[in-house]
Amino acid sequence: MKEDKTQAVSYGAAELDLGLTMALSRFVADLDFNDLSAGTVHAAKRGVMDWLGCALAGSRHATLDRLLPVLAMLSGDARFPVVGRPTRLGLLESAMANGQMGHVLDFDDTHMGGVVLHASSPLLAALLAVAEARPVDGRTLLAAYVAGFDVAVRAGQGAPGHHRGGWHLTGTLGTIGAGAAVARLLGLDARQTAYAVGIATTQAAGMQQNRGTMCKSFHAGKAAANGALAGLLAEGGFDSSLEILEGRKGFCRIFSDTAAPETLLDGLGSRFEIERNGFKPYACGIVLHPTIDAMVAIGRRIPDKASVREIALRVHPHAVSITGVADPKTGLKSKFSLTHSAAVACLDGAAGIEQYGDARAAAPDVIALRERVSVETDDSLGKDQAFARVTLAGGDVLEQAVTHATGTVDNPMSDGALEEKFLANARPVVGDGADRLADAVWGLDRMEDVRGLLQQAAGTGG
Amino acid sequence: MKEDKTQAVSYGAAELDLGLTMALSRFVADLDFNDLSAGTVHAAKRGVMDWLGCALAGSRHATLDRLLPVLAMLSGDARFPVVGRPTRLGLLESAMANGQMGHVLDFDDTHMGGVVLHASSPLLAALLAVAEARPVDGRTLLAAYVAGFDVAVRAGQGAPGHHRGGWHLTGTLGTIGAGAAVARLLGLDARQTAYAVGIATTQAAGMQQNRGTMCKSFHAGKAAANGALAGLLAEGGFDSSLEILEGRKGFCRIFSDTAAPETLLDGLGSRFEIERNGFKPYACGIVLHPTIDAMVAIGRRIPDKASVREIALRVHPHAVSITGVADPKTGLKSKFSLTHSAAVACLDGAAGIEQYGDARAAAPDVIALRERVSVETDDSLGKDQAFARVTLAGGDVLEQAVTHATGTVDNPMSDGALEEKFLANARPVVGDGADRLADAVWGLDRMEDVRGLLQQAAGTGG
Repeated sequence: MKEDKTQAVSYGAAELDLGLTMALSRFVADLDFNDLSAGTVHAAKRGVMDWLGCALAGSRHATLDRLLPVLAMLSGDARFPVVGRPTRLGLLESAMANGQMGHVLDFDDTHMGGVVLHASSPLLAALLAVAEARPVDGRTLLAAYVAGFDVAVRAGQGAPGHHRGGWHLTGTLGTIGAGAAVARLLGLDARQTAYAVGIATTQAAGMQQNRGTMCKSFHAGKAAANGALAGLLAEGGFDSSLEILEGRKGFCRIFSDTAAPETLLDGLGSRFEIERNGFKPYACGIVLHPTIDAMVAIGRRIPDKASVREIALRVHPHAVSITGVADPKTGLKSKFSLTHSAAVACLDGAAGIEQYGDARAAAPDVIALRERVSVETDDSLGKDQAFARVTLAGGDVLEQAVTHATGTVDNPMSDGALEEKFLANARPVVGDGADRLADAVWGLDRMEDVRGLLQQAAGTGG
Repeated sequence: MKEDKTQAVSYGAAELDLGLTMALSRFVADLDFNDLSAGTVHAAKRGVMDWLGCALAGSRHATLDRLLPVLAMLSGDARFPVVGRPTRLGLLESAMANGQMGHVLDFDDTHMGGVVLHASSPLLAALLAVAEARPVDGRTLLAAYVAGFDVAVRAGQGAPGHHRGGWHLTGTLGTIGAGAAVARLLGLDARQTAYAVGIATTQAAGMQQNRGTMCKSFHAGKAAANGALAGLLAEGGFDSSLEILEGRKGFCRIFSDTAAPETLLDGLGSRFEIERNGFKPYACGIVLHPTIDAMVAIGRRIPDKASVREIALRVHPHAVSITGVADPKTGLKSKFSLTHSAAVACLDGAAGIEQYGDARAAAPDVIALRERVSVETDDSLGKDQAFARVTLAGGDVLEQAVTHATGTVDNPMSDGALEEKFLANARPVVGDGADRLADAVWGLDRMEDVRGLLQQAAGTGG
C-alpha cells in the first residue's frame, strides 16, 4: 500500500511540501529491509537479543505477579503469548505484560544519542504482539523496529526539554515509536502512518514522579499497548492531526519548553538511531555504570572487604540528581542509589539482578558499606565517566578512573558479551531453549514467521 | 477495607500529617452515599441522565464504525455491553467505546468551575464497565461518580496552566478522576486509592492538537479505560508514588507552568464540584453557546433568512481562540467554527446533532451565510456572554445580548429540559426504552444492581 514507490524519494519536508510528521511518516512507510546496511541490521538484532533476555529475566519479577492476574481477568479468551509465563492474554494485554517485563529490571537498552530512552521494551512488545495477529517475516519485523526506533528518538530530539520536564521518556517516546513501528509492520501508507503516529502521540504518558514504583516499568508496557492500538486503529480508518509532532499544540511544544521540531528530519535515512543504542552490563540506570565499573575494578584488588573505611566518588552531576537515594529499602529503590551501587559493586564484584533485589537492599554488609560512601560532583566529567578512591583500614588508597563506561557507544559490549548476558538472563527461565533463542535472533533476517520467537520464549508449563 | 472509620475525620492534610494525594484519596475512600446532600445526589443523577443520552446519540456516529471493529478484534470472548450497539467487548474496550460515544458529539456535560472538562464520559464509562465485573448498587455508583468528579476537577485546579499548555483536559483529568472513581466503586482503602490515582495520573494524556479529529473523543474513551485499569491494578496490589499530584515531578508541576497543589483540598467535603456541572443545549463547545442563544433568538424574528446581509458578533476572546475555523469541511470541524454555529443557529433555529453533521457543514445556504459573519472580541464580556447584531437587506437591524448562556450554572437547564434532551437523544436508538431509562436514572439511588442501566442502553438486535 505504499505510495510512489517508483519515484526517487527525498525525505526533506520542504522538497515534498509535506509537514514534518508526514515526511517522517513517509520515511517510515517507505523504509525497506533492503535499504538497511548490514551494520543497521546487526544493531537491530542486538537490540532484539538484549530485550528478549531482559524480558525473560523480568518475567519472574514480583511486579508481574501483581500485573498478570489483572490482565488475565481483562483478557477474555486470550491467545497471545507472554514471555516466560504460561499465561495467555489479549493482544493489548500481552503487549503490556511483555513491555513491562522488558523494563522491570532496568536492565534493558539505553539510547546513547542524547535522548535517555529505553526504546526496545515498548517497540518490540508492541511489534511481537501485533505480529501474532498479522504474521510477518523477520525482515519486516527488523525494518519496523528500526523505523520505530528512529521516530521515538527523533521525537525526543524535537522536544529537548522533555526529560528535564519530568516525563519518563520510555513511556512518552516509547508510545510514539511503537505507533510508528506497528504502522510499518502493518504496511500502512504514509498518511495512515501519520495517523498512527498521531493516535500514539496523543496517548503518550509516563511521569518520573513514579520512579522506584511498579509504574516505572508499567510505562513501557503501556507504551507498547498504546502504540499497538494506535497502529491498529489507523489501519481501521481512524484519523488524527497530521501535525502531531510539529503543530502549534503538538508534541514538541507541549512536552518541552525548548521545542526544536526543525531537527525532526536531520539526517533521516542516513543516520539510523538504533546504531547509537547502548546495552547494560549492569541492572540499573546507565548513569551509575561508570561508578560500578570503577568499583568492580577496585573491589577485585581488596581481599578483605571489611577493611574498606571510605569510598569517595567523583561523578557527573546528572548521576546524583536522579540516583540520590541514600538508604534504599527495596530492590526497586536501590536502582536509584549511587551509594548502594558502589557498595554492591565493591562487595560482590557485580551489579546484576541479584544486587538490586530486596535482599541486598536490606543486607547488613551493604548497608554498612554504603554509609561509608561520599559523593562529589564534577562538571568536567562526562556522563560515562567516574572516578573512585577507596581508603582501607591500614591507610592504603586505591584509585580507579573510568573514561567510557562499559556498554556505551565508545566502549560497547561485544556480541559475545551481549550473548552471554542474554544466556544468563534466559537460561533460568527457558533452560536449553536459551541457546536456540539466541540462534533464532541472530538469524532473524531469515525467519519466515516471527511468531516463532515469542512462542519459544513463552512459558509452556504450569 | 476503609481505615479508621471510627475516628472523626478531618480532610486537611496538615492535621492528618498526610500528603495531599493521600488526603484526597482518604476523602474518596471514606465518601459515603449517606454523606451526600439531596442536591449533590440530584446533580449526579442529572449527570448520568445527560451522559447516557449523549452516548446513545453518539453510538450511531461514523467514528464508532471505525473504532468498534478494531476493539472487537482486540476483545476475545467479550461480554461487556456497548451503549446502543449489539457488540460486546472486553472490559477495557467497552469502557473505551462507551467513553468515546459520550463525547463524540461534543454534546456532553461541561464543568463550570474554571476547569474546562467533560468529566462524565470518562467517569461513567469507566464505572459502568467495572460495575459489570464487580456489581454494585446505585448508591455506590453515585458516590463513586461524585468522588471521581471532585478529584478530576481538583487536579485541574491544582494545575491552572494546564489547558493553556495544550492538553485536552477530558483526557488528562478524566483519567485521574476515573481512576479515583473506580477505586471508590471497588471499595479500596485510602492507600490503595492513592495508588489508583497514581497509576491513573501516570497514564494521563490527550493533546489539543487533535481537536477536530477522531482522537478528540478517543481521549475520553481512553481516559475511561485507563482509569478502570488503574483502579483494578491498585486493587490487585500494584503501587505508585503516593504524591503523584503534589510531588516535585507530580502532575501539578509537570502539566502546568503555574502549579497550585495547595488548592487541591480547598473546601473538600463541603463543596462538591459535580454541583457546578453544566449541560449543553447545543451539540458543540460551550464557548459557542451564548452566540447560539443570541442567533436562535434573532433568527426567530427573521421570516426570510435569505434577507440576512451581515451578522456582527461580539464575544469573549476565548471563544475565538479555540473556535476560529472559518470554513469547516466536515461536521467534526464545524464544532470548532463560530461562524458556522452562528449561521446554523440563525437558519435552523437549532444547533443540535444535525447542525454539526457533514451535510450542514457543506450546505450552500450555511456556507453563504457563514461568509457574512464578522467577529469582534470584547474583554469586558464573560465567557457565557455574547452580543449579536444582524443587518437585513432592507437595512433593518436586529440585536440580541445574552448575559448567561442556557445550560450554565447561572442559567441551568431545568430537569424537564434535561430529560427532553435525553429523550431526543435516546429515542432514535432505543425507542420507548428511552422513557424507562429516564425513570431508571431518576431512581438510581434505589437501584439494587446498576448493571441494569447498561443492559437497557445496549443494543440487542443485529
